[in-house]
Amino acid sequence: MPSFPVAFAGGKEGTWRVRGISTVVGAPLPAVERLAVLDGTREVPQSATWTLRGVVGHERYVERSEHEELAARSPGLGRPEATRAALIPIKKSEAWWSLSQDERRAIFEDDSRHIESGLKYLPAIARRLHHSRDLGEPFDFLTWFEFAPQDEVRFDELVALLRATKEWGFVDGEVDIRLER
Amino acid sequence: MPSFPVAFAGGKEGTWRVRGISTVVGAPLPAVERLAVLDGTREVPQSATWTLRGVVGHERYVERSEHEELAARSPGLGRPEATRAALIPIKKSEAWWSLSQDERRAIFEDDSRHIESGLKYLPAIARRLHHSRDLGEPFDFLTWFEFAPQDEVRFDELVALLRATKEWGFVDGEVDIRLER
Repeated sequence: MPSFPVAFAGGKEGTWRVRGISTVVGAPLPAVERLAVLDGTREVPQSATWTLRGVVGHERYVERSEHEELAARSPGLGRPEATRAALIPIKKSEAWWSLSQDERRAIFEDDSRHIESGLKYLPAIARRLHHSRDLGEPFDFLTWFEFAPQDEVRFDELVALLRATKEWGFVDGEVDIRLER
Repeated sequence: MPSFPVAFAGGKEGTWRVRGISTVVGAPLPAVERLAVLDGTREVPQSATWTLRGVVGHERYVERSEHEELAARSPGLGRPEATRAALIPIKKSEAWWSLSQDERRAIFEDDSRHIESGLKYLPAIARRLHHSRDLGEPFDFLTWFEFAPQDEVRFDELVALLRATKEWGFVDGEVDIRLER
């Protein structure tokens, strides 16, 4: 799994039509009509209104047994029936980043059941995580989800579950962008 | 501890005079006369022969108790007597990055005693770690060390100790740049 960069460009172009942008906490993102997902790109397209960049890389908290279960049950991106998507950029607080690895892992899984909750919604929801913090971006993570229209209610349930956790107490920036193609 | 970028520029300018560059494994770096350490910089200076970029950020493997001990015993950078330095860029193999977090941590500390070995050489050797992998750089980490000339023998000992560990079996690129000011 070599790591690779991805740019999410909001503007007038792209496969995905923006259905709505909600600011959950922190600074908002300007409204745009469409979103282009540019795999393998580090550059910022000049025509975009805004661009969020991240890197798909190695897992930071998942343990081997969890990895195997996630890998076995996770669908790939690009399923024909998955015509809805969500891009959720997240910024965590300095308090989070000052924690040590064992403390972050404990909040992530023991207290917040982040992986366990996600597993319940497989294989309906495909997911890809992008790390942005080292790039000096406004958000620390960009998570991309794809699902069929009839599964959007379950996706809303998953997002609500995660927002109620101890881990989410460390989120100080979050925007929820809903899309369709 | 907000994260910040650093650029190490090799060329004809900079505070540090290059005493030698050794390739330990993998691709070499071209010889240069001097090295400039540019804190807070993401740009690549045009005058440099080569530039290595990284981000000083949160700790990836260290647990809270280890953090406290390291923090209590680690000297800061820029001590007047620390007129020698080393920059050691490291690239780890795809086999390393395919491991899960618990497996990497076990090799890092249980098998390789990376933190324990480092603690033995405190407070003589100051250290700062820079992460480069997400930036698409040729190396994954850049570690910067500062010490007094009489402590360079002990620094050589530390480096030899780490190179003999199980963790170092996953290193497929390493260059050792020695400097003085």
